[in-house]
Amino acid sequence: MSNKLKRIGILTGGGDCPGLNAVIRAVTKAALSGGMEVVGIADGYLGLIENRYRPLTFDDVSSILTQGGTILGACNKSNPARYAVREDGRWVMRDVRDRVVRHCEQAGLDALVIIGGDGTMSGAADLIERGLNVVGVPKTIDNDLWGTDITFGHDSAVNTATDAIDKVHTTASSHHRVMVVELMGRYAGWLALHAGIAGGADVILIPEIPFDLEKVAEACTRRNKHGRGFTIVAAGEGAKPLGGEQIVDRVYEDSPDPIRLGGVAKFVSDRIEQMTRLDSRAIVLGHVQRGGTPTPRDRVLATQFGYHAYELLRTGGFGRVVVETEGRIDSIPIPDVADKVRTVPPDHIGIQAARAVKTSFGD
Amino acid sequence: MSNKLKRIGILTGGGDCPGLNAVIRAVTKAALSGGMEVVGIADGYLGLIENRYRPLTFDDVSSILTQGGTILGACNKSNPARYAVREDGRWVMRDVRDRVVRHCEQAGLDALVIIGGDGTMSGAADLIERGLNVVGVPKTIDNDLWGTDITFGHDSAVNTATDAIDKVHTTASSHHRVMVVELMGRYAGWLALHAGIAGGADVILIPEIPFDLEKVAEACTRRNKHGRGFTIVAAGEGAKPLGGEQIVDRVYEDSPDPIRLGGVAKFVSDRIEQMTRLDSRAIVLGHVQRGGTPTPRDRVLATQFGYHAYELLRTGGFGRVVVETEGRIDSIPIPDVADKVRTVPPDHIGIQAARAVKTSFGD
Amino acid sequence: MSNKLKRIGILTGGGDCPGLNAVIRAVTKAALSGGMEVVGIADGYLGLIENRYRPLTFDDVSSILTQGGTILGACNKSNPARYAVREDGRWVMRDVRDRVVRHCEQAGLDALVIIGGDGTMSGAADLIERGLNVVGVPKTIDNDLWGTDITFGHDSAVNTATDAIDKVHTTASSHHRVMVVELMGRYAGWLALHAGIAGGADVILIPEIPFDLEKVAEACTRRNKHGRGFTIVAAGEGAKPLGGEQIVDRVYEDSPDPIRLGGVAKFVSDRIEQMTRLDSRAIVLGHVQRGGTPTPRDRVLATQFGYHAYELLRTGGFGRVVVETEGRIDSIPIPDVADKVRTVPPDHIGIQAARAVKTSFGD
Amino acid sequence: MSNKLKRIGILTGGGDCPGLNAVIRAVTKAALSGGMEVVGIADGYLGLIENRYRPLTFDDVSSILTQGGTILGACNKSNPARYAVREDGRWVMRDVRDRVVRHCEQAGLDALVIIGGDGTMSGAADLIERGLNVVGVPKTIDNDLWGTDITFGHDSAVNTATDAIDKVHTTASSHHRVMVVELMGRYAGWLALHAGIAGGADVILIPEIPFDLEKVAEACTRRNKHGRGFTIVAAGEGAKPLGGEQIVDRVYEDSPDPIRLGGVAKFVSDRIEQMTRLDSRAIVLGHVQRGGTPTPRDRVLATQFGYHAYELLRTGGFGRVVVETEGRIDSIPIPDVADKVRTVPPDHIGIQAARAVKTSFGD
Repeated sequence: MSNKLKRIGILTGGGDCPGLNAVIRAVTKAALSGGMEVVGIADGYLGLIENRYRPLTFDDVSSILTQGGTILGACNKSNPARYAVREDGRWVMRDVRDRVVRHCEQAGLDALVIIGGDGTMSGAADLIERGLNVVGVPKTIDNDLWGTDITFGHDSAVNTATDAIDKVHTTASSHHRVMVVELMGRYAGWLALHAGIAGGADVILIPEIPFDLEKVAEACTRRNKHGRGFTIVAAGEGAKPLGGEQIVDRVYEDSPDPIRLGGVAKFVSDRIEQMTRLDSRAIVLGHVQRGGTPTPRDRVLATQFGYHAYELLRTGGFGRVVVETEGRIDSIPIPDVADKVRTVPPDHIGIQAARAVKTSFGD
Repeated sequence: MSNKLKRIGILTGGGDCPGLNAVIRAVTKAALSGGMEVVGIADGYLGLIENRYRPLTFDDVSSILTQGGTILGACNKSNPARYAVREDGRWVMRDVRDRVVRHCEQAGLDALVIIGGDGTMSGAADLIERGLNVVGVPKTIDNDLWGTDITFGHDSAVNTATDAIDKVHTTASSHHRVMVVELMGRYAGWLALHAGIAGGADVILIPEIPFDLEKVAEACTRRNKHGRGFTIVAAGEGAKPLGGEQIVDRVYEDSPDPIRLGGVAKFVSDRIEQMTRLDSRAIVLGHVQRGGTPTPRDRVLATQFGYHAYELLRTGGFGRVVVETEGRIDSIPIPDVADKVRTVPPDHIGIQAARAVKTSFGD
Repeated sequence: MSNKLKRIGILTGGGDCPGLNAVIRAVTKAALSGGMEVVGIADGYLGLIENRYRPLTFDDVSSILTQGGTILGACNKSNPARYAVREDGRWVMRDVRDRVVRHCEQAGLDALVIIGGDGTMSGAADLIERGLNVVGVPKTIDNDLWGTDITFGHDSAVNTATDAIDKVHTTASSHHRVMVVELMGRYAGWLALHAGIAGGADVILIPEIPFDLEKVAEACTRRNKHGRGFTIVAAGEGAKPLGGEQIVDRVYEDSPDPIRLGGVAKFVSDRIEQMTRLDSRAIVLGHVQRGGTPTPRDRVLATQFGYHAYELLRTGGFGRVVVETEGRIDSIPIPDVADKVRTVPPDHIGIQAARAVKTSFGD
Repeated sequence: MSNKLKRIGILTGGGDCPGLNAVIRAVTKAALSGGMEVVGIADGYLGLIENRYRPLTFDDVSSILTQGGTILGACNKSNPARYAVREDGRWVMRDVRDRVVRHCEQAGLDALVIIGGDGTMSGAADLIERGLNVVGVPKTIDNDLWGTDITFGHDSAVNTATDAIDKVHTTASSHHRVMVVELMGRYAGWLALHAGIAGGADVILIPEIPFDLEKVAEACTRRNKHGRGFTIVAAGEGAKPLGGEQIVDRVYEDSPDPIRLGGVAKFVSDRIEQMTRLDSRAIVLGHVQRGGTPTPRDRVLATQFGYHAYELLRTGGFGRVVVETEGRIDSIPIPDVADKVRTVPPDHIGIQAARAVKTSFGD
């Protein structure tokens, strides 16, 4: 391959996330200005498998900065290592990674920009092993990607979640209720922690700190006695009671191996109502958290990530994923982040600050 | 009672609703300026039953215009006609309406402003019969009160619901999914209809038009064939399939006789996925729709309703509830609106306009 | 012309307004579904003059519902009756109305949907006289169109203006200041009145009620004495002091004959500071009020207006403009609304309600 | 003074800023929980000078997290080193710093938490010299405080500014205009840079990069030629043309010595219109940027800053101001930050990323 890239591809993998289009726009504008051709691959890895792509022009990425979602389409069920195909009347899993590499070569792609979470980065590591030039951009509303302090999309999701908590506040206080709001975040508590602090939640439940129902109930009744007849609980979807009681009926949609864990809001709400006789309600915010226009901060971060990805392309920094650490944008090897999760450290300043303003973590 | 009122009480009944504080503020400011004393009754009818109230001053209602909820507290389980009391170790229902009248007299209240929905107005009609001077102000996010074209709170709820649909749009389009968003509205489709039109939903399901699942599935697959690989369904919580298949597990919380009807989003989402093989998701927006700061329109409407309620007080227009009909604010007898529901007429311009922009109602 | 329309044109005239695209979408979808061809005319009347247009398809109007502005472009300086052309090195005004009619015939347009304000409707009346089939849709953020109680765009503008007042509130109260916020609205006070009520402004100045500076100053100092060390003034751009003191330096951009009137915020702020020694600031919100995504209410209203315009097309109701009166959508002759302004009646319930909550109008 | 603090005071100095109340709440809750008494000082240094303060309880700081402004009041004209007093019929400047120290002693304050910008920190340094125990918390929407990468309030201001640019976008594109939006930021370009990137501005003008009007005009006409008939310019209030042409009529309100610099939006808009014949408009966003509810991010940051300030109090870390550097919350000596400004480095990644997406800085 020549030193100078002629043609690059971009794909977005995994779940929806505000800011994806801002990255696509930044990479595309920078690459086109730098004399490269840019190709948008449809529906994540699925487009690579099925050979679906189209050229991207300045016009294609004009005015997409503020749009949620991805103009390329995404697909969080297509893993080239385990691709479901219909054979002899039944579904079997096939490894189509070599086909993906072949398609990239046929399309004349000198390099790929892959935007996605830990699962997508794991797929990217496979392609790197097979010789492709790949640059990664981390993406997750959950902020749980290993190696980076922050990812775009998280701030937008915190915004949506906080707005919901703010709204629920008025109902809780008017009706003297316990309101349990279940937020996304998978195995990490970042989203619940940040939205919980921002929304002034009285109790925050996160996967990193197994909760004691007695303590949660105590927090609710204590508030009730002090004349504040309501309690707001922000619960990360992965939060678990001490002792590991199973809370079934939820599937993390991005998990390679879906694990049933959830329904934490309903579980907590029902138990608290039983234990305290306080009127209690569960709210599951759901996919609303993944959508919408990105916050200004996420637009800026995504633009900077996209620009840095282009710089990696331009300077041959292949096999690396963009990160922000210690307040600076940098990059680390993609295999380092694949399939890893960054959880909230128990002494995180957010947890300490929340405790200082009298927030209970149920412990 | 003298011609001129000396002292009035205000209470807010039923569920939470953006704009309640704006009404309280308008009534209180106008009444204080008009030389009356104003008393705020705590927690709806419960405060009348339990004799809990406090004087309201200009300071108490300063800067509450933009706050959701009610500074007085609300309670949607306290009906003076059927008040639960503990006797001999078990709960029995007592009629405490006379006690309520006695408490009003003891508190020196010359008149009551009662803000609430159809259930609350039914209670108000009882008090009128017993000789109390009552002025009603209609309140419901569902917009289903008989006798008025619009109530404050509805616009705010439509706003929150539309915002959710807007957000879900990006996920639906990025992932080629069917997204079914369940909205409040009880037995009436106003909220789903308005948010559905505003959010550009492809399918709107409302209680007034029983839906045919085959037609809904058809709408989803038709869109898929035309290259728009996603469908947004806005479903009112009271929407029902043709033929009356039971959809269990939801309770209308303001209903005097709770009726299990719901789970419409999950029901539709599951069936559509089975019928069409399209990836489908359900979102239940829940109590978020009741909360938050009122929209400017609701603040204006609530202020005008509050002012008109004061005018009724001042001019002796007792036994009447404020309404807006034919674009003008007016009043009608409270008993006329008690326990009645205003549903969407099948030839409503909203339905016609939605059909014209190719929205399916599943019929 | 045959009974059934084959081909229609749409244009948007005058200033920007949230909801224009929602009307374009509704008309286009309904007309295409009804078997008509639809042509979008570029940049208002200018496109008719210069013969610039393009066909509109379902795809063209897909996902524009939530977008502010107009996909067709607008131009508020092109009046076919007085079109500026360069002749012999200087600009002269020409009447090109016949040319416009000719272009419509050449383009095979059986009818035109013209979306605009009073000036645009005046132009439409000219075309009707010349035999064109025209249906009008009223548009103005100012809500000052004669014959209709409400126009789309107004609610969105009130929303933006109220949001600004809400924000200014915190600064005013933290710094014990007088803050004068100048809002749009031209010769009518609707926008200032509605945003003023919604934002809880202490003083509202509108063109319909000439203000006495002494009274405004009094309102500010009275609040200061009562311990509320701040005052919010919402001033319509057309508000004038009693006695007609000239406040120069503003031009209404949509006026056919621009009249200098404004700078009311700076004028009031400066005088109040001189008269009261209170710290005072002026804010001119400007074009921000015209932009942004339409509120859900405006999206619904614009969709219904668009649908009704299509119904007028379909049933031959030419020469009429869509209106909402007495809570119902209807239509009236276009010439009736041309060049007329609907101002706020002095006994409007909004003014009465505002006075009841102690708002001063400076009179 | 004993090792353990018994009573602390809090004050907020300088201009309004979203998040002030979140800091007050965090410090107060943490200090009360830690067994200290907390006193809120009114109106910044003015309250120290005039001896006005009141005790703060849990109730006082309950539900202020989401409120903009400061419940304590602020004053950006009271500097104890130069306090204006009336003597013999005229105003003279007096040094009242010793009086301030005396008042603190009389009030029994063991330490002060001072929240403010560079000017306020300069005043704090004076008090430290006189022996007071002071902990500083940095505050500025401009993000221009030396020693910290970020301050609360900035994200909220960027949000408001970006929202305005988003709104102006639709007008600009519908009317083929140049829109110049003037943003705050004083001598630093952070706010214009961040809002400009987030809003997708085509041109960003900041004080750190003097602009060439020819280059700005070129950017506008180039866009026009490429069929995008509009240009958005985000201009920091301190931006200056190359060669130092004076742009008069604006006063930085927080400056100790007000310097007239501004009117940059009108200046640029007028010149561009002359140079390019393109229709052009100026918008000065003004104080709206200081107000409103803080963003979730600012609420979290302010809560963490407040918590860290308490930790400094608890551990005797006096004379220090909280900062965030390299992604971590820490503290540095207050005198280090007094009267210093942190501007945008010319090689900042934001500038590089903006250039990569074809944004012009007018250079």
